[in-house]
Amino acid sequence: MKAEIITIGDELLIGQVVNTNQAYIAEKFTEIGISVERMVTVSDDLDPILDAFREAWNRVDVVAVTGGLGPTHDDITKKAVCQFFGTSLVSRQEVRENIERLLQARNLPWSPASEEQTMFPASATVMLNRLGSAAGILFEKEGKYLIALPGVPYEMTAIVSEEFIPWLTKRLHGPVLRQVTLRTTGISESKLSGLLGDLDALLQGARLAFLPSPAGVRLRATVLDTDAIVAEERLKAVESRIREKAARYIFGSSTNQLEEIVGNLLTEKGLTISVAESCTGGLIADYLTDVSGSSGYFDRSVVAYSNKSKAELLGVPAELIAAYGAVSREVAEAMARGIRAASGTSIGLSTTGIAGPTGAAAEKPVGLVWIGYADEHLSLAVKLNLGNDRRRVKERAATAALDLVRRKLMKIE
Amino acid sequence: MKAEIITIGDELLIGQVVNTNQAYIAEKFTEIGISVERMVTVSDDLDPILDAFREAWNRVDVVAVTGGLGPTHDDITKKAVCQFFGTSLVSRQEVRENIERLLQARNLPWSPASEEQTMFPASATVMLNRLGSAAGILFEKEGKYLIALPGVPYEMTAIVSEEFIPWLTKRLHGPVLRQVTLRTTGISESKLSGLLGDLDALLQGARLAFLPSPAGVRLRATVLDTDAIVAEERLKAVESRIREKAARYIFGSSTNQLEEIVGNLLTEKGLTISVAESCTGGLIADYLTDVSGSSGYFDRSVVAYSNKSKAELLGVPAELIAAYGAVSREVAEAMARGIRAASGTSIGLSTTGIAGPTGAAAEKPVGLVWIGYADEHLSLAVKLNLGNDRRRVKERAATAALDLVRRKLMKIE
Repeated sequence: MKAEIITIGDELLIGQVVNTNQAYIAEKFTEIGISVERMVTVSDDLDPILDAFREAWNRVDVVAVTGGLGPTHDDITKKAVCQFFGTSLVSRQEVRENIERLLQARNLPWSPASEEQTMFPASATVMLNRLGSAAGILFEKEGKYLIALPGVPYEMTAIVSEEFIPWLTKRLHGPVLRQVTLRTTGISESKLSGLLGDLDALLQGARLAFLPSPAGVRLRATVLDTDAIVAEERLKAVESRIREKAARYIFGSSTNQLEEIVGNLLTEKGLTISVAESCTGGLIADYLTDVSGSSGYFDRSVVAYSNKSKAELLGVPAELIAAYGAVSREVAEAMARGIRAASGTSIGLSTTGIAGPTGAAAEKPVGLVWIGYADEHLSLAVKLNLGNDRRRVKERAATAALDLVRRKLMKIE
Repeated sequence: MKAEIITIGDELLIGQVVNTNQAYIAEKFTEIGISVERMVTVSDDLDPILDAFREAWNRVDVVAVTGGLGPTHDDITKKAVCQFFGTSLVSRQEVRENIERLLQARNLPWSPASEEQTMFPASATVMLNRLGSAAGILFEKEGKYLIALPGVPYEMTAIVSEEFIPWLTKRLHGPVLRQVTLRTTGISESKLSGLLGDLDALLQGARLAFLPSPAGVRLRATVLDTDAIVAEERLKAVESRIREKAARYIFGSSTNQLEEIVGNLLTEKGLTISVAESCTGGLIADYLTDVSGSSGYFDRSVVAYSNKSKAELLGVPAELIAAYGAVSREVAEAMARGIRAASGTSIGLSTTGIAGPTGAAAEKPVGLVWIGYADEHLSLAVKLNLGNDRRRVKERAATAALDLVRRKLMKIE
């Protein structure tokens, strides 16, 4: 099956916004074996939108459109799809109920704009938007599909992953495709490639993509086969060969987040954790508390940015900081022990480093980070060099700290 | 002058790479008043590339093409431009000299691949690539232009900014474009639209785009005029009319982040801040510490997830929590006062709420958040309902908390 992705929005044509939506949809289509042939971006004007619809509809089987579904005057995708498919807007009960639910949750009243948003093309299927008022609009005609999605990324991704991809997968034909994504951290793309060795022997006809992100490299293995059971068996074999080579770095599969893995391990073992953060500035706590139920094992985090707060909250002696500097093995360990003692948790975790761009010294460059760890048996600290971009340093340090806990809990050295 | 941007590359169509190149070129074109009408991405195959060339060449005055100029087998842009413009490749001295210089600088020998890279379309102009071997290829025909650029971002941006934009600016005619972006928070797109009222009266010929994000809605006003000074005056008038209507919600312009604005206000006034976070789980500290230099005004954040930690770290009495619940006006205020007292900062800020999906009660639904604020004169708490997605609740609560500080510091009620 072939697809085209059409993105609507003046903000893209003036370069103010980078088009992450089309990349997201392309990745999701590719994962289920749909080939994206072309991506097009046009302005918030009717004629270019209709031109793009016409061209795409003639060329491919699936057309995904994003943008232009909000309540403001520049949002004209609804008008365009109605004109293109010869239908008109009617008020739809399922859309109304969703909007009522959203407004209630935020304690907001019904408004004329809400009423406007219940209007939906008569001949289209509603793809529910759990997070916003603009539902996805799905047309099905002569074995082809066109879906119009809101441009707000988190709403678009929710509709695509939770509604549209499952719906579309049932309508696919041809060889079956099976995929697994293994999430790694703490190793670069090129080192990981070296570790895996001879790819032909490893993959035996499967495909492997290296997908880098600040949290680590994802490995996506894909098998195509005419037989579903054979495809699954081949995929399992590839996965186990990859895991054999890179076990230390693989923390989970698919959409597992590292903080969920760590949370599950803590819960299983009946352990609790507290965190003392300097250079990560609250990001470890932010990651941990993104997991619902984290209050069961996460007690507290202290973002001790000043030396004074390191002394007051964590009992790190001023003399220790004076002797070794705030960014040192000694202070990282003392912070981890200090937060563990203060909170009475099983594990204490800490970070101290130089996120940059300022604060570097000859011996201590931007990107230098110490991660401290303490439990009832031991305390230790690990030194990392994490580059020179402030946000990346924070993200990499927070990920490395959580991965250190994972490896300790799993007894992986 | 109108333009189209064509990006060539399979890695984009499978969603592996986000297309930052087209956004960069679009921004540069917009800055000099060239209107980008369409962006297209196609695969590394000759037919789709030639189709895209034909369509764009018929529609616009300037066609920018990126990708497919490297030395590997899938790079076929040179072949495509030669076929499209009816010319052939010849070895060009200026390209040869540039490659020689690059190889010498890296101490590398001349190779057959280097020889191949000196081949350049006979009828095209060389746009020098200071950083790589693939020069930009510029065609000029019947008052229209097509430029083919390498896909490596830093090479592409160097050619565009140093060579092509200066070259093109000399050939421009037509109206100039001026823009401003105002960042708002704490108000939905539809309410903001209502607040601005009659858009025709407000804009008087300018265009306005509403760009929503979790942190708030950005408003982008655009003016086109034949005269640059008139365009700037008209834009200023539009901006001041928008500010008049929505002053309370506008925290900055362009790419200003709320945490930078708050940081600047604290620095100007010589004030310091500490934070006690429950439902935001460290996100306020994470935002604040994304700003380099935040150690000058940010002392600490305590993520007090457990009731025990609220008592120990913030001095919130267990009786207060028992009487009103952890998510209450009373506890939010006590947390803000508590962190301020413990840290000795000018301002104490706090959050307590139900991020969900679990933890709700009849009177306290998911999304209920109290923000507490304390300074030397007063303490208060504000109640918000922020929807039912855990991550969004955290982001909205953290943004609302920072915006409360901004409004207090600016004395906006």
